[in-house]
Amino acid sequence: MGRARRCRFCHRPAEVVVRQANLPLCREHFISWFERRVERTIRRYRMLGPGERVLVAVSGGKDSLALLHALKSLSGPMGFEVSAVTLDLGIEGNSYSKLSVETASRAAKALGVEHIVVSIGDRYGFTLDEAVRVVRRPPCSLCGLIKRYALTDVARELGFDALATGHTLDDVARFLLSSYIFTSIRELVRQTPVVPPKLPGLPRLIKPFYESLEEHIRAYADFLGLNYMQDGCPYARTAPTDYFRAFLDEVEARSPGAKHTMVRGYIKHIRPALLASLGNKIEPIRPCSKCGLPSSGEVCAFCRLRERVLRALGKA
Amino acid sequence: MGRARRCRFCHRPAEVVVRQANLPLCREHFISWFERRVERTIRRYRMLGPGERVLVAVSGGKDSLALLHALKSLSGPMGFEVSAVTLDLGIEGNSYSKLSVETASRAAKALGVEHIVVSIGDRYGFTLDEAVRVVRRPPCSLCGLIKRYALTDVARELGFDALATGHTLDDVARFLLSSYIFTSIRELVRQTPVVPPKLPGLPRLIKPFYESLEEHIRAYADFLGLNYMQDGCPYARTAPTDYFRAFLDEVEARSPGAKHTMVRGYIKHIRPALLASLGNKIEPIRPCSKCGLPSSGEVCAFCRLRERVLRALGKA
Repeated sequence: MGRARRCRFCHRPAEVVVRQANLPLCREHFISWFERRVERTIRRYRMLGPGERVLVAVSGGKDSLALLHALKSLSGPMGFEVSAVTLDLGIEGNSYSKLSVETASRAAKALGVEHIVVSIGDRYGFTLDEAVRVVRRPPCSLCGLIKRYALTDVARELGFDALATGHTLDDVARFLLSSYIFTSIRELVRQTPVVPPKLPGLPRLIKPFYESLEEHIRAYADFLGLNYMQDGCPYARTAPTDYFRAFLDEVEARSPGAKHTMVRGYIKHIRPALLASLGNKIEPIRPCSKCGLPSSGEVCAFCRLRERVLRALGKA
Repeated sequence: MGRARRCRFCHRPAEVVVRQANLPLCREHFISWFERRVERTIRRYRMLGPGERVLVAVSGGKDSLALLHALKSLSGPMGFEVSAVTLDLGIEGNSYSKLSVETASRAAKALGVEHIVVSIGDRYGFTLDEAVRVVRRPPCSLCGLIKRYALTDVARELGFDALATGHTLDDVARFLLSSYIFTSIRELVRQTPVVPPKLPGLPRLIKPFYESLEEHIRAYADFLGLNYMQDGCPYARTAPTDYFRAFLDEVEARSPGAKHTMVRGYIKHIRPALLASLGNKIEPIRPCSKCGLPSSGEVCAFCRLRERVLRALGKA
């Protein structure tokens, strides 16, 4: 081009170009464009209504700090209330959990948002490190189970209407890609921007970044000067899907908007068709006989894991 | 491993290991394993029955020569008859079309199979090179349209029951991947191992390599010493999907059998669900008013292309 591009709205030099819309924007207008997009996602999928209370899961990483910031910004105009929760999972490597709690606390304080810290060790009697030591299962899978359970448990106890997580458009596209290849239909249909409560009294689960690209979330976090954790989880090197990420990034680079097209096509066409074809073959959900949270069997997966770990640790 | 692996069936040194089955095989047992697999695909999808006549589209490349060879081998035991057809598309670059016809003729002669050569220029009045020159459309898209049309036209004229093409499991997986991302539902549901005739008197279209990996087709062709064309089409460098190929090859390398899982999952779960959801929103097909072959409109896409090219060339 030769010439520097200028912001579509104020004609100052652009700092970012939203490729799928060929939209050059300055910092300030990018921030408001990004937040409008999150607002549109929240409205499109009816994630939050006026007067509701949302609990945001904050790990201290880029995505969750950006989510907390975006939801706090939208909370006034949209009329909902925001609190933050951070799980202290008990990951000692690189002082990961300690840094995670500190980073999240600092961010919540700066925004004037209530911050709840829940220690998995105190609440359930074992840490993630202990579970990893005694259960032969990938750490990321154990961590996912524990986090999903604990966040729902806390949000229920405190009476929140919704629990928000920082899952991004990239996360969703990667999950769909993997499910299409390995064809786990039941897993596939569970991937939605909003999961309604499975039992009364539970929060709905919402993903306000369902239509936001990671590269835009990063720009948003950087432009706002958010002080997020740079280092990832010490267990994360066991995650094997980096080449899925690289492939989808190449698709997006060649066809800007492709990730969004993929996810919208899934939500509009493929999921409804699969859901209709499954009919009532979907597993019934009932309260776990130990804890009361949703379960497909007599005892839920978390209570079974907990019992196993506590027994192995000689605590039960 | 240290030790060389041995053929599961005869204990001679293995020359290939079928990774998804962890099955080491010598040349001879690989060839029969490969042909049994093609036979299973033909039976599973009811591609060909006893007494039927199949026309095999042979370009002279690895896949189509291997297909001709495999179908000829299976024709005795399964009781069908095989002929070959090669289109002279009129691609002058690297003498591509000339070599294509010669290679196919030599292979058909060696197998004792009838070989039909159809010159697109003679039959329809224009070559692919001429079409590429006067129509602003990717060459591969023009070539696809012309080949599909001419092969169906010739098979109909000669009364064949089926027209077989060398589409591989890799081709199908790539097509699915692209359709899942860009979500063209109507394109997606059209991807099947067998396409029944859309109008009476037409051949069914079959893909006997629907469950065969390219790497196995290559080994089969090499073990048999098939003399296939090494150089690809001079237009092929315009095909932009090499990174799709690389990605799926990596998925297969890490999870042997993944391409087949993807294609079976599509056929068993995703396609039926999509088809049911489309209901009768599928476009009706009628005979083209000019040539009588299937068309979604008054005049078929080929006849419209032909008219346009002949007019531009001053031949109409």
